[in-house]
Amino acid sequence: MEFLTQDKLTLIGAGGMIGSNMVQTAIMMGLTPNICAYDPYAPALEGMAEEMFHSGFDRINLTFTDNIEAALKDAVYVVSSGGAARKAGMTREDLLRGNAEIAAQLGRDLRRYGKKVRFVVIVFNPADITGLVTLLYSGLEPSRLCTLAALDSTRLQTALAQYFGIPRDRVQNARTYGGHGEQMAVFASTARIDGNPLSTLIGTPALPEEQWKELQQKVIQGGKRIIDLRGRSSFQSPAYLSVEMIRAAMGGEPFRWPAGVYVNRDGFDHIMMAMETDIDRNGVTYRVPQGTPAEMEALRDSYLHLSRLRDEVIRMGIIPPVPQWARVNPYLA
Amino acid sequence: MEFLTQDKLTLIGAGGMIGSNMVQTAIMMGLTPNICAYDPYAPALEGMAEEMFHSGFDRINLTFTDNIEAALKDAVYVVSSGGAARKAGMTREDLLRGNAEIAAQLGRDLRRYGKKVRFVVIVFNPADITGLVTLLYSGLEPSRLCTLAALDSTRLQTALAQYFGIPRDRVQNARTYGGHGEQMAVFASTARIDGNPLSTLIGTPALPEEQWKELQQKVIQGGKRIIDLRGRSSFQSPAYLSVEMIRAAMGGEPFRWPAGVYVNRDGFDHIMMAMETDIDRNGVTYRVPQGTPAEMEALRDSYLHLSRLRDEVIRMGIIPPVPQWARVNPYLA
Repeated sequence: MEFLTQDKLTLIGAGGMIGSNMVQTAIMMGLTPNICAYDPYAPALEGMAEEMFHSGFDRINLTFTDNIEAALKDAVYVVSSGGAARKAGMTREDLLRGNAEIAAQLGRDLRRYGKKVRFVVIVFNPADITGLVTLLYSGLEPSRLCTLAALDSTRLQTALAQYFGIPRDRVQNARTYGGHGEQMAVFASTARIDGNPLSTLIGTPALPEEQWKELQQKVIQGGKRIIDLRGRSSFQSPAYLSVEMIRAAMGGEPFRWPAGVYVNRDGFDHIMMAMETDIDRNGVTYRVPQGTPAEMEALRDSYLHLSRLRDEVIRMGIIPPVPQWARVNPYLA
Repeated sequence: MEFLTQDKLTLIGAGGMIGSNMVQTAIMMGLTPNICAYDPYAPALEGMAEEMFHSGFDRINLTFTDNIEAALKDAVYVVSSGGAARKAGMTREDLLRGNAEIAAQLGRDLRRYGKKVRFVVIVFNPADITGLVTLLYSGLEPSRLCTLAALDSTRLQTALAQYFGIPRDRVQNARTYGGHGEQMAVFASTARIDGNPLSTLIGTPALPEEQWKELQQKVIQGGKRIIDLRGRSSFQSPAYLSVEMIRAAMGGEPFRWPAGVYVNRDGFDHIMMAMETDIDRNGVTYRVPQGTPAEMEALRDSYLHLSRLRDEVIRMGIIPPVPQWARVNPYLA
């Protein structure tokens, strides 16, 4: 097996469902032999590591530790799925506060111990916020960190393929931008169904307005539906896609979906949101998508929603007000 | 991505933890674009399939069904992890009866619907028995079916590497044969530690007899330890290894570990047990391992234990007495 790089890849939250799948996926993709698995919960971490050893993977130097300093030392690539899951009785705010605090600590740890880090992918929810908080405290350049934002687009592709009864790969360039779930901005103008622009089909007998609304609703509810069907949150798809993002950052195959990136221009102010992106060995770059006026308005709404979430985290005292960010991370001035 | 074959691969139990990992693993390995996922529990199956769709895998024709006839129609390769898990209050006999009955039905379904089946891998416990029962009722030649038996050997390799503090791949040819867990026969004479025969190290300061006993005990308890650590049975390693077996049967990379096969010679009578095996496009062939007298005695004990389990299933009425097997499957005469 040829590896893409020898650089150390650190996977955070590796004892969990997403994290343990990330480890297996990264090994199977042949990204690097040097993989370090971190989780603060040592037993689950060791159990995952034993399973990897029992799989008989060759030429892999898989280490595992519950010490974040050891995990981040010499790490060049980092993926974190290490948030808390929403538990019974927990409000949305509880989850936001808990995971924003975890993100703040991860950012500080990256700054303190991750001197060689070149690229970070953040997976835990709400990823636009946890990614932003991690970026702020890490001191990294914005091009060095992105968040998993592809699932809405892959769900849109899937729902369109199912609606039209065609294979998924005949639905091209299905795209959502901005936030996630209720807050995502669906860009029908970018998508092609068998080469035909999706926007020319909406409102015709091929895809009446009402069915299109239902279809978007299905995409919005995509994550909830996995929970209903499987009795657990999605873990295979976020794990696989986040490892694909790191593969691109290592110089491997291009990542084909939107990613969440730090945006601070074109009327979007100090925010992290899904944009059209390219990820390569130099990090992530983005373009603001160009859609119809209605799509751009939806993107703007999505941005405003994310701004309110960010401001909520500021009010919680987890991150400082925006004007003070430059003192924490000069790249975010 | 180049595929090994275009033949249909059917994965049974695909809604479960092992099965859903098998689907992802088979897709990532590029075995075949034509993968059919089956599970009698439709919601979990659909949830897994949605996750695969949301992963954005290209050029994959993944279908899913809770109809076994549709699943096995035109299937050329089959892996089944579709047994019941041991539940609280269930005795060992309950589990044996339940899974032997599932295996009997799978065998009948393979005979009835799986007209094109070339190779089957059985993963669900106790695999030596469920594999034997499936083989009997399927009417397949013994070279067309094997069971997952590698985990004891990979656990032995892992435990030796950990004991000697060396990378796993410097422990070569770690092997157990016969049954599993308590009943496995450890062949120290086959293994090499950094090129040195393991048997020359046992009983020396490098590996005192007592530490060797402890190490074997660790291997025997390997599955239980995963449950203790993860709070669930191992799923990543059995999934990965069983897909590696199917890859070998498709003409891909050789499988490097023992497999459970039907044995009916050399003093082993109408039984399925782990042997030294080769799996290729013609199916599975085996050699009876040659060890020290003590190792051969352990293998014999393991065989006798498996014979008792088989006879228990005969007494349950799930399979007929051995002399009548030829009427059910002439290849087992």
